[in-house]
Amino acid sequence: MNQNWISKENLDAAHQRIKDHLHRSPVLSSQALNEISGAELFFKVEGFQKTGSFKARGASNAILQLDEEAKAKGVATHSSGNHGQALAWAAQNFGIPCHVIMPSNAPAVKIAAVKGYGATVHLCEPNLEAREAGLAEVQSKYGVHFIPPYDHPHIIAGQSSAGAELLEAHNDLDYLMAPVGGGGLLAGTALAAHFYSTRCKVIAGEPAGADDAYRSFYSGERVTSHQPKTIADGLLTTLGAHNFPIIQDLVEAIITVSDEEIIAAMKLIYTRMKLVIEPSAAVPFAALLQQKERFAGQKVGIILSGANVDLAKLPF
Amino acid sequence: MNQNWISKENLDAAHQRIKDHLHRSPVLSSQALNEISGAELFFKVEGFQKTGSFKARGASNAILQLDEEAKAKGVATHSSGNHGQALAWAAQNFGIPCHVIMPSNAPAVKIAAVKGYGATVHLCEPNLEAREAGLAEVQSKYGVHFIPPYDHPHIIAGQSSAGAELLEAHNDLDYLMAPVGGGGLLAGTALAAHFYSTRCKVIAGEPAGADDAYRSFYSGERVTSHQPKTIADGLLTTLGAHNFPIIQDLVEAIITVSDEEIIAAMKLIYTRMKLVIEPSAAVPFAALLQQKERFAGQKVGIILSGANVDLAKLPF
Repeated sequence: MNQNWISKENLDAAHQRIKDHLHRSPVLSSQALNEISGAELFFKVEGFQKTGSFKARGASNAILQLDEEAKAKGVATHSSGNHGQALAWAAQNFGIPCHVIMPSNAPAVKIAAVKGYGATVHLCEPNLEAREAGLAEVQSKYGVHFIPPYDHPHIIAGQSSAGAELLEAHNDLDYLMAPVGGGGLLAGTALAAHFYSTRCKVIAGEPAGADDAYRSFYSGERVTSHQPKTIADGLLTTLGAHNFPIIQDLVEAIITVSDEEIIAAMKLIYTRMKLVIEPSAAVPFAALLQQKERFAGQKVGIILSGANVDLAKLPF
Repeated sequence: MNQNWISKENLDAAHQRIKDHLHRSPVLSSQALNEISGAELFFKVEGFQKTGSFKARGASNAILQLDEEAKAKGVATHSSGNHGQALAWAAQNFGIPCHVIMPSNAPAVKIAAVKGYGATVHLCEPNLEAREAGLAEVQSKYGVHFIPPYDHPHIIAGQSSAGAELLEAHNDLDYLMAPVGGGGLLAGTALAAHFYSTRCKVIAGEPAGADDAYRSFYSGERVTSHQPKTIADGLLTTLGAHNFPIIQDLVEAIITVSDEEIIAAMKLIYTRMKLVIEPSAAVPFAALLQQKERFAGQKVGIILSGANVDLAKLPF
C-alpha cells in the first residue's frame, strides 16, 4: 500500500474521534436469508446511520481533523448524493459552514435534504467541469476546505469504522463484503479486516455496468474514466488514487453483478429483512448470491451501505 | 373487565412461555420523527418479529397451552393474513400439524408463505360463510383445535408481550399506542400498561374506514358487523367479545385516521426510519400526528405491528 498514514493507531484514532457523534448501527441477521444463501450472514445496517448512509463516518472524521482556522471558514464539496448530505449534516453537527455544489438536475428532494442540514447549495450545470469550476469558485470566494467524497486518508479511515464495528460484534467472520464505487468504503473495510482480524477476507461487489474497480483490480492499472450505467447510483464514481493500492493489496476479489441481480438481492432484503435500502447497498449481497459455493457455510459480514432511495421508483 | 383469566401472573406466565421462541424485537428511535411530531417516540419494530408481525406472539402462546393430545391432532384457523402465517410458523416450530382455510382469491404469495411454513392450505370461496364451513369441515375431519385470530384470552395474553417488552425497555413512557382491528394487540397492550406501568396511558389508532372499535368504544355497545374499506388491510376485522371490555376499561382513547393520513405516516417511517412496514402498522403514528398537541413533549411507545406488504403496491 505504501501510504505512511496507514496504521492501526490511525484507524483506532479515527474511530475514537467520531464514535460519539454517530450511531453504532445495528447488526441484523435473517434466518430466511441464511437459508437462501447457504451462509451465515451478519448485516451492518448503515441505512440507520446518521443521514442514512456510512458517508457520515468519513465526513465526520475529515472535519474533526481540520484546524480551528479551517473549521471557522468551513467546508465544501460537490455531490448530488450521500456524501453531500453527510458533509452538510456533519458540518451542522460541528457548527461550521458548509457549501455543496450540486447539479441543477439533482432531485429536488436531495437538494432540500442538503439545505435541511443547513448547508448553502450552489447549483451548477450537470457536468464534471461545471462542478469543479463551481467548487473552485466557492473555495476562492469563501476560503473553504474541500472535503472529497472518497479519495482521501481521512475519509477512508472514517469509513473503516463500519467494518471495525462489525468485527467487534462478530470477531469470527470469514468474510467481510462491501460495495465499491470510488473505493472509500471498500478500502476502509479492507483496512479494518487487516488490522482487526487475523482471518477475515474482504470481497467487494460492483455493478457490471460500472466495473472500473473490477477492471483496475484485475489489470493492475487504475481505470480513471468510464461511462457507467447501473441502477446502483451510489457507485457511479471512479476508483480513487489513495483507494486503489489498498484495495489491490488487501482485497481478495471483486465480483461484478448485473442490475437484475442487484434488484433481486434488493427485493430479498426488503421482503425478508423488512429494511429499506438503496440499490448500491444490495450489491455485495447480490455478489454473494451469484457465488454461493464460495461462501457456503461461511460467516459473512455484509455492509448495507445506505438507504437513501426514491421509493416511487422502486424497481419491483 | 370481569374476566377471571386476567391477572399479572397470567401475563407473566404467557411472556415466560413464549419468549425463547420469538425475537425480542428492537425498539428504535428517530430524531427526525421526534422533531416532526414534537414527542419522544419509541418504536417497537414487530416487522422484525418471526413471520413479520406481532401475531407470532399470540399464536405461540395459544399452541403452547394445548394439551399433548390436542397438540398431536394439530391446529387450524381461517385467515388470509398475518395470523395464518403466524399460526403456520408456530405450529411448524412446535412440530404439530396446521391447517389454514384461505379464500381462493388470496394473493398467491400469501398462500405460498403459509405453505412454506409447512401448513396444509384449504382454499374456499371468498366469503365468511365458506370460511367457517371450511373450518368446521377440517375440524370434524382432523379433530384439530381452532386457534382464533384475536378473540381469545391466550391470544390477547400473547400479544401483550410486545407492550410489556417495550415498557421493560422504557419504563417511563407516558403513552403506549397500538392499532386496533379485532383488538388482540390493543387489549394486550392495554393489559401490559395496566400491570407493568403505574402511569402509562394507552391510545389506539383506527382507520376511519373501519371504525367499529371507535364506534363501540364511544357508544358502549360492541359493533358486530360493518363494511370496512381502508388501505390498512390488517384492520378489517370486527372487535372481539373478549377484547371489547378490556379496551373499554383500560384504553384512554381511540383516534380514527383517514387513509391519506395512514399513507403519509407510512411514508415517513419508510423515508426517515428506513423501515418496511404494512399500512396497518402506520395507523397509531398517523393518529399521533393528527393530534400532536395531545402528545407534545411526551414519551410515546408505538407498536409497529407488522411488515407484510406487497411492495409493488406501495401507495407512494
